[in-house]
Amino acid sequence: MTEPRKPRRTSIGSQRNPESEEAILSAAAAILREGGLGAFSIEAVARRAKAGKPTIYRWWPSKAALLLDVYHRQKEVSPPVYTGNVRGDLMRFMTELLSYWKRGGGAVFRSVIAEAQGDPAAAAALAGYAAERRIHTGAMIREAQAAGQVRPDADPELIGEMLSSFAWSRLLTNRLDMSEPEIAAYVDSLFDGIRPG
Amino acid sequence: MTEPRKPRRTSIGSQRNPESEEAILSAAAAILREGGLGAFSIEAVARRAKAGKPTIYRWWPSKAALLLDVYHRQKEVSPPVYTGNVRGDLMRFMTELLSYWKRGGGAVFRSVIAEAQGDPAAAAALAGYAAERRIHTGAMIREAQAAGQVRPDADPELIGEMLSSFAWSRLLTNRLDMSEPEIAAYVDSLFDGIRPG
Repeated sequence: MTEPRKPRRTSIGSQRNPESEEAILSAAAAILREGGLGAFSIEAVARRAKAGKPTIYRWWPSKAALLLDVYHRQKEVSPPVYTGNVRGDLMRFMTELLSYWKRGGGAVFRSVIAEAQGDPAAAAALAGYAAERRIHTGAMIREAQAAGQVRPDADPELIGEMLSSFAWSRLLTNRLDMSEPEIAAYVDSLFDGIRPG
Repeated sequence: MTEPRKPRRTSIGSQRNPESEEAILSAAAAILREGGLGAFSIEAVARRAKAGKPTIYRWWPSKAALLLDVYHRQKEVSPPVYTGNVRGDLMRFMTELLSYWKRGGGAVFRSVIAEAQGDPAAAAALAGYAAERRIHTGAMIREAQAAGQVRPDADPELIGEMLSSFAWSRLLTNRLDMSEPEIAAYVDSLFDGIRPG
């Protein structure tokens, strides 16, 4: 399940045209699906979507920004939603994310992280995406906090960052194989901390 | 300060010759210092160290493995050592690591992470290095645990991984600027967990 509302990752001056936007994103997704990352370029997307390259660049300032938008739309991971049991919610979120990445969904994301290390435009796209995800996960932690399931002095965005950074490092070192008890041990560590009781 | 003993990251069949090893590592460091990453290649290192490429490849199976060895030797970060106050030790470790990376020391490491996303040899080198660092940080946590400063059911290597993954994600998203209170808030989160008291 993907999120019903995909917030925009780029602040743009011009209004997007929903139909063109959809055509561009569909073309981008199709190119990725059929040819993989090697086939992906703004040029190829423009050709397939019958859109002008300037139009694409007006809405997505870099190839990485467009890749991240396609990646996020395709991400078969339930959004981190608080359902009344924050430990279970975090378990489910982490389990689904690692499993989606392991099934192949992580390839685009890790390529963007790699590209961001040498390319300022990709770095900006990644920074924006990561900030948005921290806010999103943070909002879920904040809800749990309001319900008394998270200590009142915890920083929700920092907790979100701890979760995502752990997942990233698993992706980047090919260690996505985590059993349920391993994920539970991780969530327990995050929950209980390390201070002796 | 760097660690007095640098454990080897590669399991090799042949015995290393300490003098040649030193010559190769010094040449590699000089090339990085003078020409940056763009100038770094096994070929260039071999030429400068007056060593054969097969010798280098026998001891370091990839360019990334050699880069990581040089990076680790140059890393001006005190090793994570337990001094009797684990919270202070973790604060110091994180502060020094982010500060070293920010001063420019992170460039090599992030380039290896990037390269590892597309190149199996670099991925193997990174995986080996990350595993070694987890064990090293884990040993420090284990010491603190033996002294009663860390809860007995915490997994030391998992805690080490939480620390390093957080630092990695800061490096990879150009967010190395953390104030002392921000680092303290992070270490507190790790310490106290998120479960309400």
